[in-house]
Amino acid sequence: MTANALSPEAARTYELDRRHVFHSWSAQSTVDPMVITRAEGCYVWDGAGNRLLDFSSQLVNTNLGHQHPRVVEAIAEQARRLATVAPQHANDQRGEAARLIAERTPGDLDRVFFTNGGADANEHAVRMARLSTGRPKVLTRYRSYHGGTQTAINLTGDPRRWANDSGTAGVVHFFGPYRYRSHFHAETEQQECERALEHLAQVIELEGPRTIAAVLLEAIPGTAGIMVPPPGYLAGVRELCDRHGIVLIMDEVMTGFGRTGAWFVSGDEGVVPDLLTFAKGVNSGYVPLGGVAISEHIAAHFAERPYPGGLTYSGHPLACAAAVASITAMEDEGVVGNARRIGAEVLGPELAKLAARHPSVGEVRGRGVFWAVELATAAADVMPDLVGTAKRLGLLPFTNANRIHVVPPCTITEAEARDGLALLDQVLDRADELVAR
Amino acid sequence: MTANALSPEAARTYELDRRHVFHSWSAQSTVDPMVITRAEGCYVWDGAGNRLLDFSSQLVNTNLGHQHPRVVEAIAEQARRLATVAPQHANDQRGEAARLIAERTPGDLDRVFFTNGGADANEHAVRMARLSTGRPKVLTRYRSYHGGTQTAINLTGDPRRWANDSGTAGVVHFFGPYRYRSHFHAETEQQECERALEHLAQVIELEGPRTIAAVLLEAIPGTAGIMVPPPGYLAGVRELCDRHGIVLIMDEVMTGFGRTGAWFVSGDEGVVPDLLTFAKGVNSGYVPLGGVAISEHIAAHFAERPYPGGLTYSGHPLACAAAVASITAMEDEGVVGNARRIGAEVLGPELAKLAARHPSVGEVRGRGVFWAVELATAAADVMPDLVGTAKRLGLLPFTNANRIHVVPPCTITEAEARDGLALLDQVLDRADELVAR
Repeated sequence: MTANALSPEAARTYELDRRHVFHSWSAQSTVDPMVITRAEGCYVWDGAGNRLLDFSSQLVNTNLGHQHPRVVEAIAEQARRLATVAPQHANDQRGEAARLIAERTPGDLDRVFFTNGGADANEHAVRMARLSTGRPKVLTRYRSYHGGTQTAINLTGDPRRWANDSGTAGVVHFFGPYRYRSHFHAETEQQECERALEHLAQVIELEGPRTIAAVLLEAIPGTAGIMVPPPGYLAGVRELCDRHGIVLIMDEVMTGFGRTGAWFVSGDEGVVPDLLTFAKGVNSGYVPLGGVAISEHIAAHFAERPYPGGLTYSGHPLACAAAVASITAMEDEGVVGNARRIGAEVLGPELAKLAARHPSVGEVRGRGVFWAVELATAAADVMPDLVGTAKRLGLLPFTNANRIHVVPPCTITEAEARDGLALLDQVLDRADELVAR
Repeated sequence: MTANALSPEAARTYELDRRHVFHSWSAQSTVDPMVITRAEGCYVWDGAGNRLLDFSSQLVNTNLGHQHPRVVEAIAEQARRLATVAPQHANDQRGEAARLIAERTPGDLDRVFFTNGGADANEHAVRMARLSTGRPKVLTRYRSYHGGTQTAINLTGDPRRWANDSGTAGVVHFFGPYRYRSHFHAETEQQECERALEHLAQVIELEGPRTIAAVLLEAIPGTAGIMVPPPGYLAGVRELCDRHGIVLIMDEVMTGFGRTGAWFVSGDEGVVPDLLTFAKGVNSGYVPLGGVAISEHIAAHFAERPYPGGLTYSGHPLACAAAVASITAMEDEGVVGNARRIGAEVLGPELAKLAARHPSVGEVRGRGVFWAVELATAAADVMPDLVGTAKRLGLLPFTNANRIHVVPPCTITEAEARDGLALLDQVLDRADELVAR
């Protein structure tokens, strides 16, 4: 993508961006953004008029695809009705969004504290766990991502934590199941599960069970690699938490609202956490929104005691109206089932074929529209080339470390999925060249 | 406001709220929210059809009033064009919003890192200060509010910090100027200023200047009491920071975008901070948005080094489109000048008269549409009665501790301001009764 190819409007956007916009997670002098001028369904258009198939869902958030007409109209309508009210008041869209979410979360997670996104959802969930248990520590996984604010980034178990690791008190990282690069020298899925649980049990014992407020887990770690936990792992963690009075917080920011072919992984697996955090897919990120779904016993802790946390935009009517429309559209249009079917019938089998055909691929794994293609090499130096190749071919990928994630909207059709896989096939041809070289 | 008086729709909203919505800063069993069904300009309507004059701007965020047609239409239009793209791409609304903000912030604060609100803006500003100086500590004021996430609430110097005070490392609180209840036994404004600066200089010396990354200050402390700093104070803090290589972060989340009759207090006072945080008035909170305006030398620190922070909704196109429309409307309609005039010609002189007439009033102070009426009693036990009285009279107030804040939209007309002051007069009659009793 060169500035020369851009339309005059896109060139202006690029110039303003480089002059005034400070970008996330980047050395600012190296930032060279693609201008996005338009988007629809599974496609985006860049500033030179090229159409790209969006296999990233941006940051794995546009579960309904881009510009879903029902959500767009709901936003326009709510903007005209009532854009915002303060959190201390009540509002119809906020109440209805909370009801729709509570209906879909597992068990007794019936109360919702709304935030602006996933990071502050995790910050508040951890606060609720610490205050309701009176214990300081939180156990989280290595290879995880929980958000960018200070507590959230210290909870995170990926390299983005390092520069921020100011010794934020009370976070301990443990190893989770990751069969492909097993920490536990496991030879089977079942062994990986057993040993991972045994490891966690020992960490709990050695940290001191009565010092641990919470275990915080992505239901399936997302950006860190989409490591689907082996059968029984989440239930085993639930049991360990129960045994020691530890709050189980399930981070479903990326996995929730259809991504894995279910409303939530926890519900799908029959595991009820004490707190569940969400964002992204709740309204496809059309308006910033996140939150914590809260179980009865944690809500009860704050029935008579004030909960010491809040934010100006908690339960923002415009954001909640987008959630109401989004959840309703997903329900009416069978979007969750579509994600499950596309995963089971297209992405799963076809990615397995790609893995078999391309020596550069180490493993493919996932569920629904949530898949990782992990290269056999652990080095990430080939990735910029692969991203460039993909974009030139018309595919917008999501990558992290040595992985290409296949995370299109949950609304993707079989034909679109097959188109994208054909492009990915070519990207992996290039990977074969580079990795073999 | 009783549930009986509510319309059936509002009763349903109330019921859903009480069943499913977890509220900020509250013991959940005591929450009894007013249903807001409609709003326009300086007015809101409750679930029983009563109209209230909004002297709160919700949480001091609707600087343009409710449902400003140009901002509403910009949201509807942008929703139809392109609701969201990921932060790594470039987008016209994001670039334009950054440009409009950079034009209005003082000095060389020309780059904008967008967040979802004020709390994460302060979290990121503190991170930038710590990383660019390599120093750990941040000095903030007692009597301040900087947000609800874990670092932000520990930076805060009001009682909401206490329950969250987990010893978050590296925050030291000092005393700022507050003439009415002077910590410095000052007898004049000038003395208050000199002694407050001397106090800060000593805290810096005794904490160790080379351990201090930043001084973080609300330009005028907001929720904590609208204590307008005496002339020379902010410039004196700037000088102390310069002397010791300390980053000055000005929190203009509440004061920015017209609230005080200026775009920013810092610019108005001729003081250029190194980092300036904003939210609320940037788009009147119609879509969640906040950010950090960054000086050249801090941006330069992250030119070649990655900035280790980010968020999915950074520079959200819908939120930025609302900011573009909001800033443009404020400019075209002279909203900042209106706020200044209403403050100088109506709120200032009339609140002074109320203070003289009502023995319950201790002090009134403020600027623009940003005023505090502090009761002579330090006890806050009369406040629930006063809030109820105000609402019954048709006035929606903002209160904190022993203060009623007069913080209407910046668009308020002289007639509306006088209407509200007449209602406030009656509320203060009630205060006189209660405080004398």
